[in-house]
Amino acid sequence: MTTGRIEAFSDGVIAIILPLMVLERRPPAGSGAAAELLALAPAFLSYILSFLYVGIYWNNHHHLLHTVRRPTAAILWANLHLLFWLSMVPFATAWMGAFPTDAAPTAAYGVVMLFAAIAYTVLQGFILHGHADDSPLARAIGSDWKGKISLLCYLGSIGLAYLRPAISQALFLGVAALWLVPDRRVEQAVCEEQANIP
Amino acid sequence: MTTGRIEAFSDGVIAIILPLMVLERRPPAGSGAAAELLALAPAFLSYILSFLYVGIYWNNHHHLLHTVRRPTAAILWANLHLLFWLSMVPFATAWMGAFPTDAAPTAAYGVVMLFAAIAYTVLQGFILHGHADDSPLARAIGSDWKGKISLLCYLGSIGLAYLRPAISQALFLGVAALWLVPDRRVEQAVCEEQANIP
Amino acid sequence: MTTGRIEAFSDGVIAIILPLMVLERRPPAGSGAAAELLALAPAFLSYILSFLYVGIYWNNHHHLLHTVRRPTAAILWANLHLLFWLSMVPFATAWMGAFPTDAAPTAAYGVVMLFAAIAYTVLQGFILHGHADDSPLARAIGSDWKGKISLLCYLGSIGLAYLRPAISQALFLGVAALWLVPDRRVEQAVCEEQANIP
Amino acid sequence: MTTGRIEAFSDGVIAIILPLMVLERRPPAGSGAAAELLALAPAFLSYILSFLYVGIYWNNHHHLLHTVRRPTAAILWANLHLLFWLSMVPFATAWMGAFPTDAAPTAAYGVVMLFAAIAYTVLQGFILHGHADDSPLARAIGSDWKGKISLLCYLGSIGLAYLRPAISQALFLGVAALWLVPDRRVEQAVCEEQANIP
Repeated sequence: MTTGRIEAFSDGVIAIILPLMVLERRPPAGSGAAAELLALAPAFLSYILSFLYVGIYWNNHHHLLHTVRRPTAAILWANLHLLFWLSMVPFATAWMGAFPTDAAPTAAYGVVMLFAAIAYTVLQGFILHGHADDSPLARAIGSDWKGKISLLCYLGSIGLAYLRPAISQALFLGVAALWLVPDRRVEQAVCEEQANIP
Repeated sequence: MTTGRIEAFSDGVIAIILPLMVLERRPPAGSGAAAELLALAPAFLSYILSFLYVGIYWNNHHHLLHTVRRPTAAILWANLHLLFWLSMVPFATAWMGAFPTDAAPTAAYGVVMLFAAIAYTVLQGFILHGHADDSPLARAIGSDWKGKISLLCYLGSIGLAYLRPAISQALFLGVAALWLVPDRRVEQAVCEEQANIP
Repeated sequence: MTTGRIEAFSDGVIAIILPLMVLERRPPAGSGAAAELLALAPAFLSYILSFLYVGIYWNNHHHLLHTVRRPTAAILWANLHLLFWLSMVPFATAWMGAFPTDAAPTAAYGVVMLFAAIAYTVLQGFILHGHADDSPLARAIGSDWKGKISLLCYLGSIGLAYLRPAISQALFLGVAALWLVPDRRVEQAVCEEQANIP
Repeated sequence: MTTGRIEAFSDGVIAIILPLMVLERRPPAGSGAAAELLALAPAFLSYILSFLYVGIYWNNHHHLLHTVRRPTAAILWANLHLLFWLSMVPFATAWMGAFPTDAAPTAAYGVVMLFAAIAYTVLQGFILHGHADDSPLARAIGSDWKGKISLLCYLGSIGLAYLRPAISQALFLGVAALWLVPDRRVEQAVCEEQANIP
């Protein structure tokens, strides 16, 4: 089992998740009065949010996987676990888009995001395990403050959804903004490691 | 992040969009009287139009991406932005196909096409940015009159849909015909650039 | 544009068509009395038939494409035209499976099969055009009696559906059986051509 | 037809099956009272089970295919036959998830699993056919007790579903647990064979 094959399979799953989210977005039954179009707005906005998240995962996942030389069974299943939670994103997106002012759908979106982030952290841990403690990748990830803040925000969004869904939705946007910049730490580590190979 | 991987991922997303558009086209509930089949005609025609558009984007996108040597983060996100608007095509196709004589669905189709074209222009701009002003690609794209006419037509189609949807639909067909010829300018530039590499 | 990329893109589209056909097959609303399961049988049988057809196309398409050295724009668009008709197969399968004893759905299945076969013949023609008249591929395809018989059967099935859908369905099965054997003529031609390359 | 292409096509089909299963899982029509969420639990659990199964097939399929040097037509069609039954998994998953306490949906899940396992055994047999009787792969698979136990469990689950669906569902979980460990026998055989190539 080569890294390339895990990457190609993951890319396939992620490439399918993106357009599937729009499939959930059935065209309105009517021919489009202003009121009907306005009713579509939350669904559209939640799609944009999820598209950003899946794009960020695709990007960072790629950089992370590039540091793997020999994938172990643990890395393989940790990766499938991440794909599992990413494959729940279209469901959560459709539900939050349909009931944007209700607590449960927004909380469900937070739960999916929380578990996807945990799955990513676990995958990162298994991959780090194969590197030395002072490897460029280990130093690059360092304290992983971005990952920790994200986990806290997702956790908070689940509870806050029952107070006010809009606060949780603002948190989702904030975390997406935080990650929109590609993870240069890991990107740079890849370069350093490759430079180290004589 | 190599160009090959962006290309493979984009191909995956586009490959899924094509058959998804037919999935939106549920088979008639009845067993097919002539009237029922006739009612399917607009949906079928709008599917053919969108298939052409997505095919054209796939073709030109490929030629454009081949001129990229080192993809930057800007190119990566500009590409995801283009995929976002292309992934909206099945939605717009299904809606225009269901209400072909109404203004809003046809205008929505024009909006999706306009933003896809803008996303393509932005991506082209970022890619050109990495080339010299007198590079074969820069000279090949030149004034980009095709791109500019298309943007104008899409913009016009949004307004004209409220006058008469059929005019907008004729514009969509016209633009597709304009692009059906693969973008030889860029194709040739790729060859020239490769010839320039000693 | 290399042959490899057209092949990868076609494979992507075909790989998606297969599971999409089952998606059309929604699980029964009830919990499965014998009568409900029996009602699913035609849908299931039409899925098996279409799975066979798409598998045959995937197999033969691969052998054909392997004889292409430099894909032209004509080959590219002829290939997209074939993918267009293959992407209509899930629709036709679902409709024939839902109304197996009615004329129009079976005739529609025949129409899709007829145009897919025409598209394949056109693609084959464009590819042959790039070969010499006495090339191994040209000699291998020869009179293409299999292709001609298939076209006739599909044409007949459209008319016969209005007489008795079961006759057309038997024709579909017969043609599938005819092609189930991979196209050894082309397969062999590929070997010969590769042997000819010094 | 190379092994790589069969593998890439199979990966494509399997990559699509995973997110398709969630698509079947439409978001609840309401905004998520506790009772509504609880009603989703069986559907969610059956999705997790199927995700595990498809992940296991993907993993073992890969190791098996890597021992193939020249794919024959028999291997090609045995592989498509396996993909056929895997493509029925989303259907069976959705049905069992919707009616978890009824006999027929659980039995149907067992039938799909039984035929997928038979298809895998047939594919394995055709691949073994191309190896010597004392090849590392032949010795590695040996008596294939895992495969035989699985077949028996699936067979049993079909009958037991009519007694008590929960017993069959426990059997499904047990078999998944049995296979969760990647098939090291074959994995090791691949290494040995590659070591044998001088």
